Amino acid sequence: MQISTDQIRLFNTYHEAHHKRQFEYLASELAENGLDVESLLEKISHFQVAIPSWALGTGGTRFGRFSMSGEPGNLTEKIKDIGILHQLTRSAGAVSLHIPWDIPEYPEEIKELADAYGIVFDAVNSNTFQDQPGQASSYKYGSLCATEPTVRSQAIEHNKSVIDHGIALGSKSLTVWLSDGSNFPGQLNFRKALQRTQQSLQEIYAYMPSDWKMYIEYKPYEPNFYSTVIQDWGTSHLLAQACGDRAYCLVDLGHHLPNTNIEQIVATLLWKGKLGGFHFNDSKYGDDDLTVGSIKPYQLFLIFNELVFGMENNEGHNPPLAWMIDASHNIKDPLEDLMQSLEAIRLAYAQALIVNHERLEHARDINDVTLCQEIMQAAYRTDLRPLLQEARLRTGGAIEPISFYREANIREQLTAKRGITSVATGL
Amino acid sequence: MQISTDQIRLFNTYHEAHHKRQFEYLASELAENGLDVESLLEKISHFQVAIPSWALGTGGTRFGRFSMSGEPGNLTEKIKDIGILHQLTRSAGAVSLHIPWDIPEYPEEIKELADAYGIVFDAVNSNTFQDQPGQASSYKYGSLCATEPTVRSQAIEHNKSVIDHGIALGSKSLTVWLSDGSNFPGQLNFRKALQRTQQSLQEIYAYMPSDWKMYIEYKPYEPNFYSTVIQDWGTSHLLAQACGDRAYCLVDLGHHLPNTNIEQIVATLLWKGKLGGFHFNDSKYGDDDLTVGSIKPYQLFLIFNELVFGMENNEGHNPPLAWMIDASHNIKDPLEDLMQSLEAIRLAYAQALIVNHERLEHARDINDVTLCQEIMQAAYRTDLRPLLQEARLRTGGAIEPISFYREANIREQLTAKRGITSVATGL
Amino acid sequence: MQISTDQIRLFNTYHEAHHKRQFEYLASELAENGLDVESLLEKISHFQVAIPSWALGTGGTRFGRFSMSGEPGNLTEKIKDIGILHQLTRSAGAVSLHIPWDIPEYPEEIKELADAYGIVFDAVNSNTFQDQPGQASSYKYGSLCATEPTVRSQAIEHNKSVIDHGIALGSKSLTVWLSDGSNFPGQLNFRKALQRTQQSLQEIYAYMPSDWKMYIEYKPYEPNFYSTVIQDWGTSHLLAQACGDRAYCLVDLGHHLPNTNIEQIVATLLWKGKLGGFHFNDSKYGDDDLTVGSIKPYQLFLIFNELVFGMENNEGHNPPLAWMIDASHNIKDPLEDLMQSLEAIRLAYAQALIVNHERLEHARDINDVTLCQEIMQAAYRTDLRPLLQEARLRTGGAIEPISFYREANIREQLTAKRGITSVATGL
Amino acid sequence: MQISTDQIRLFNTYHEAHHKRQFEYLASELAENGLDVESLLEKISHFQVAIPSWALGTGGTRFGRFSMSGEPGNLTEKIKDIGILHQLTRSAGAVSLHIPWDIPEYPEEIKELADAYGIVFDAVNSNTFQDQPGQASSYKYGSLCATEPTVRSQAIEHNKSVIDHGIALGSKSLTVWLSDGSNFPGQLNFRKALQRTQQSLQEIYAYMPSDWKMYIEYKPYEPNFYSTVIQDWGTSHLLAQACGDRAYCLVDLGHHLPNTNIEQIVATLLWKGKLGGFHFNDSKYGDDDLTVGSIKPYQLFLIFNELVFGMENNEGHNPPLAWMIDASHNIKDPLEDLMQSLEAIRLAYAQALIVNHERLEHARDINDVTLCQEIMQAAYRTDLRPLLQEARLRTGGAIEPISFYREANIREQLTAKRGITSVATGL
Repeated sequence: MQISTDQIRLFNTYHEAHHKRQFEYLASELAENGLDVESLLEKISHFQVAIPSWALGTGGTRFGRFSMSGEPGNLTEKIKDIGILHQLTRSAGAVSLHIPWDIPEYPEEIKELADAYGIVFDAVNSNTFQDQPGQASSYKYGSLCATEPTVRSQAIEHNKSVIDHGIALGSKSLTVWLSDGSNFPGQLNFRKALQRTQQSLQEIYAYMPSDWKMYIEYKPYEPNFYSTVIQDWGTSHLLAQACGDRAYCLVDLGHHLPNTNIEQIVATLLWKGKLGGFHFNDSKYGDDDLTVGSIKPYQLFLIFNELVFGMENNEGHNPPLAWMIDASHNIKDPLEDLMQSLEAIRLAYAQALIVNHERLEHARDINDVTLCQEIMQAAYRTDLRPLLQEARLRTGGAIEPISFYREANIREQLTAKRGITSVATGL
Repeated sequence: MQISTDQIRLFNTYHEAHHKRQFEYLASELAENGLDVESLLEKISHFQVAIPSWALGTGGTRFGRFSMSGEPGNLTEKIKDIGILHQLTRSAGAVSLHIPWDIPEYPEEIKELADAYGIVFDAVNSNTFQDQPGQASSYKYGSLCATEPTVRSQAIEHNKSVIDHGIALGSKSLTVWLSDGSNFPGQLNFRKALQRTQQSLQEIYAYMPSDWKMYIEYKPYEPNFYSTVIQDWGTSHLLAQACGDRAYCLVDLGHHLPNTNIEQIVATLLWKGKLGGFHFNDSKYGDDDLTVGSIKPYQLFLIFNELVFGMENNEGHNPPLAWMIDASHNIKDPLEDLMQSLEAIRLAYAQALIVNHERLEHARDINDVTLCQEIMQAAYRTDLRPLLQEARLRTGGAIEPISFYREANIREQLTAKRGITSVATGL
Repeated sequence: MQISTDQIRLFNTYHEAHHKRQFEYLASELAENGLDVESLLEKISHFQVAIPSWALGTGGTRFGRFSMSGEPGNLTEKIKDIGILHQLTRSAGAVSLHIPWDIPEYPEEIKELADAYGIVFDAVNSNTFQDQPGQASSYKYGSLCATEPTVRSQAIEHNKSVIDHGIALGSKSLTVWLSDGSNFPGQLNFRKALQRTQQSLQEIYAYMPSDWKMYIEYKPYEPNFYSTVIQDWGTSHLLAQACGDRAYCLVDLGHHLPNTNIEQIVATLLWKGKLGGFHFNDSKYGDDDLTVGSIKPYQLFLIFNELVFGMENNEGHNPPLAWMIDASHNIKDPLEDLMQSLEAIRLAYAQALIVNHERLEHARDINDVTLCQEIMQAAYRTDLRPLLQEARLRTGGAIEPISFYREANIREQLTAKRGITSVATGL
Repeated sequence: MQISTDQIRLFNTYHEAHHKRQFEYLASELAENGLDVESLLEKISHFQVAIPSWALGTGGTRFGRFSMSGEPGNLTEKIKDIGILHQLTRSAGAVSLHIPWDIPEYPEEIKELADAYGIVFDAVNSNTFQDQPGQASSYKYGSLCATEPTVRSQAIEHNKSVIDHGIALGSKSLTVWLSDGSNFPGQLNFRKALQRTQQSLQEIYAYMPSDWKMYIEYKPYEPNFYSTVIQDWGTSHLLAQACGDRAYCLVDLGHHLPNTNIEQIVATLLWKGKLGGFHFNDSKYGDDDLTVGSIKPYQLFLIFNELVFGMENNEGHNPPLAWMIDASHNIKDPLEDLMQSLEAIRLAYAQALIVNHERLEHARDINDVTLCQEIMQAAYRTDLRPLLQEARLRTGGAIEPISFYREANIREQLTAKRGITSVATGL
């Protein structure tokens, strides 16, 4: 489904007067605070987030999945869905494929399609946390860490084939997330499991083209687990060091123990030049994969504050980060949910951009704690939505993407085309 | 599959000499501490735990399920599996059915089968957390709390039909567990959702025969949730009060926030006479449904200490509790896993039985904190396994159930009969 | 120290132009959304929060306290400090005394002083978590729950004397917070400890004048604890029920286990008409007593959303709540810190006031989850600071209280008067 | 106070008959399982734990401290208290000094005294988390991380002087624990604070004699904190790497977020040869500093299981660890509390020693998860207390240290000598 540019323009015309008033007010306020509004708009417009190919369908839990209608039934339709997102928000200009859920049969065609939508191929993701039909060995007891050499080989080969798929599409990085671990105390020899994982990762790393990067995800627990092999950033960092210069840690917001200070982890990894990628979502209890910014928006802002500082003071030569939304859309229309996430991400980014770092550093130097807090809260409390709207307006997106989506009956159109019972591959 | 009594007797003969030496030593030690060993054996032998009908197959997560061979394919086979458990351990003399996973087609036949194994029918469980094929309305947005009256009606009717099934089998109680709640802030009007839930429960309660009890489970979160309607024991208690005298709270060990003092909740509910049932499992991070006692065995002992005290000082007229194992067996043979759980439960119970409560109360009265701890740890550190073995030996079970199970190749026999790919209904 | 009205007016004059532009923009935006700005201003202006008498000095941890200069050395000076807060913010029109830290020697004089500042006496707080010099019995092993009758009597008598002090000042409620509990498993008989606590509270309740209320605080843990007697709202609610109609639960934001859904507890207690008071603070890990809104401002908004709904739909006949800041000011100037807290509280309240409840209820009814989130976030993301400023301006406060405080060198003046080493009573 | 050897011998005579019966039974059971009892006894006897000099007095919280009588009033008396512990348990053969709480005026005399008790000087601890009277700069805003160079210099110099004190006593290591961090978001530049900390530590490291080691402690939070500079083992590891080969991580059991898998951290650090020291305590909620093994004894066993495996398979060339009890004795007699901790530590160690690692590794290799659990639980459930008693008996300690301590009225004697109101330096 291609939304016509005219349709968006028409929609914007209706909302433009109100928007302009809001934007002008905000712009003058920002300018008064010494901020360069044009530069802000440019930075915001450039900020693009990858959509994982499996996020376009409804997600589920162990109790099942409540599907919605019009889900994309294949990769082509998924790319088209991302196309809709990108057309409306101008911020979803990348896709992150999950293999084997979304193996491109005809890579060239898929590339062309993505290209038509202005979408590039970001990191490819392997999957050794599920058994696939017809698979020789099972990952029941782990994959890259398995005691059985044949299981490890199979998992390594799978990762290599994911790299191959990525090469065909123009990807430049591989994300490895493992649910390897143990369910009971004593089940696993922690050291040996980590050593085997390291060897497996090194083998995969060696297979990557020399311009590729590897992102190693960590996670403290999975449902029913007692331990995971890569439980925290420290372990991920050890593995990345052991693999080589182009191996990095990947931070997923939901992969932490209760109360973890994630923004500090971000700062530390950026300092060391070892932060590779970022998976956005939100959560209240565990790895809930909820809409970005729906639970702890202030934390998201604090994280962006570290990201902005880290990238602008890049003494660790950290490469540009791979941004991805990694949420599960169980009861909302996935496209609406993703638009809410994209908005929350850009909002937090914009808030971080208007922090007055010069004043902040000075307040820190003299331990003026009250002032530090005032500076942070002033940025966060500013209503920057008109800035995001302006960025969208200027780049051809919709001022209000969700309103457009609803008024244009896009889900209804997709359902008409794809049917009520189409089910997307994924979780 | 029926294990012959002779086979067990033969097995025990081999292990009896060693066991007797261990038991005699232990018995003399206990007697020296003023304990009546025969009375302990009797109490332990009487302690029976219900097995849920869905626990005989392998469990899974949202990433899938790694099935094992020989899983029971229907309710008859499930009852037979529990029969094996009960024959070997003499502690699994009850089954708890989950509807609609295990609707008994011919209740009388099932009753006779269970009877033959000495198994009674404990609480029946309803399921409104999943949609069943052909169901008129969906539980996507909740069941007993749903805003849609038709959804609520359907959920209430389902619970009534579960009661009907239970009546046919001789059950005397209904367990209600809900995954009702919300995924995002603002989605639910907390008060109205609780009121609707209360009304629905009252309607179900009114339908129950006058000798039935209702157990209301609580749980603070589910994966992907922001709130659950019955988040804690306080809410469950409010609802039980609103329903009537025969409505009780049900405590599931895995349904608490990190660090909750569960033993204190148990003490409080027993005092108020409102503790109805207990679901055993263990966990390290969330509601992990691991083998009982596999992670926090001391906590299990502390809980049993409250249960023993509460039942022996029953001023709140709390009825006998419904005990059930509520674990998920994802990577172990479910029957072996359940035998480990049964052992851990009886062990904790036995440890609690040998606490010297007279000395303990005195130490508490004079605030001798060191001594309180010494008394608790002395009971816990005593190796009571020979006591459990003796209780099994005397009641016809196997001294070492898992060894018997393995030596007798029971899983292999089940697989030969049922096949490699049989899959049990359940999660 | 009395700040002259002229001084504030002069200050405001400098900031008024900018403020007016911001306010007019905001007012027009709000009006466009159908909101009655005058009514909002009135509600906000009426919202008053009590300052605890012990919060005017720096707080400490077990590692010590880093005092600042000019701390109030007696109750008179503390009232004067609250006077400064109230003059500048017009939102701190109440004081909550902590006995025995702040026993008023001449109640009438203190009342007159407070009256001069427009400050009323809110709930009085007892303290049985510390031993006072010369005290007959020690609270080492608890107070209202103690096994020793003499300890309990002493604690009960102390609470009665606190009520007497409160009567003399015009207070109408007593807040009871206990650090009673146990440090080790087995130390306490949970049931008996709870029963003794109930009896003690009932005796205190009986002593209260018939127009008084009792607020019973709960808390899951203290440093070094294994259990607390009143671990959660459920226990507090049982006790309040046992005491009588004028006994209520008190929610302190920091008194919960990790990830607790506090807003839901608020909703439940309001429904039952049993929410008496509220202690504001914020925290990242435990009961950190940080500045309100400094860590989880969105949660604060969600809580206010429940409070606003609950008070406007008061079927449980919940009385007006006692609001109090309960934070510890360890490294910031306490007065600045309190001004930041007061601002955060009013901001969250204002955000909750602009939630369109009619639209929200409709979205909930039709399970439009996306829309529910949009409505909540739209309110939260609106920059309402100009509204708070306008409310202050109209009631005689300072547009920017902290700026005024700094420009007027208030701390320096207090230091000049009170000295560098004055230390406030309290923690 | 010196306990006479005869007194202990006499005491043991009374308990020996019963003990021997228990020990012989246990020894024969262990031998039957192929274990070398003599070797176990030797290993257990050699296991010595350091007592921190500040742990001999009662600890406190921010609410105060409930002192007990007979507390040691100076370092000499503290050494004597440890002497009592060591005489009775034969497991407390080391002391860990905390400077400036326990600066030895006459090191030679203190050394001689300690020597007379068979006590060596383990790691010395610096303290830059409190201001000392007369100190030039304050640590209010941090110490090694402070923005003020003079503060950092002072903290570095303090650490150097601690090293000097340690050299005089024969210590060979320095433990650095910081409460540096921030209370509010934005207060600290995470990167710069970590860089400054690294520089400070490097300067201290350079000052250490070439046979010294540095132990760097981590901790995720302190009361009232938003962040700590060294929040986790990953950060501690980065710093240790940056300092040099003789810098190590120190694990304190209480310094982790809820649910952390500490045993896995231990395994990882041992693999890398970077685990320097270990602080024992236990906790239910936060850093509660409770008696070792009083809350989670199974976790303690699992940790020892890693320690035993790691030290016996020392491919990372990890040096012998510095073991220390780091608990706070708030309501128990500190000496009794420490005896309970020492018993729990040796018990967990003994349990780990009897794990059949050969069988375990085999079970792991074939993914026999049930068997892995059986092996672990079999070791843990064995009652090994007679083994610990035998180890004490053979090395001249008391079979039942706490009974001896009480029967001999040691606390009463100490009180008679030192008075009722003596207060030990420390927290």
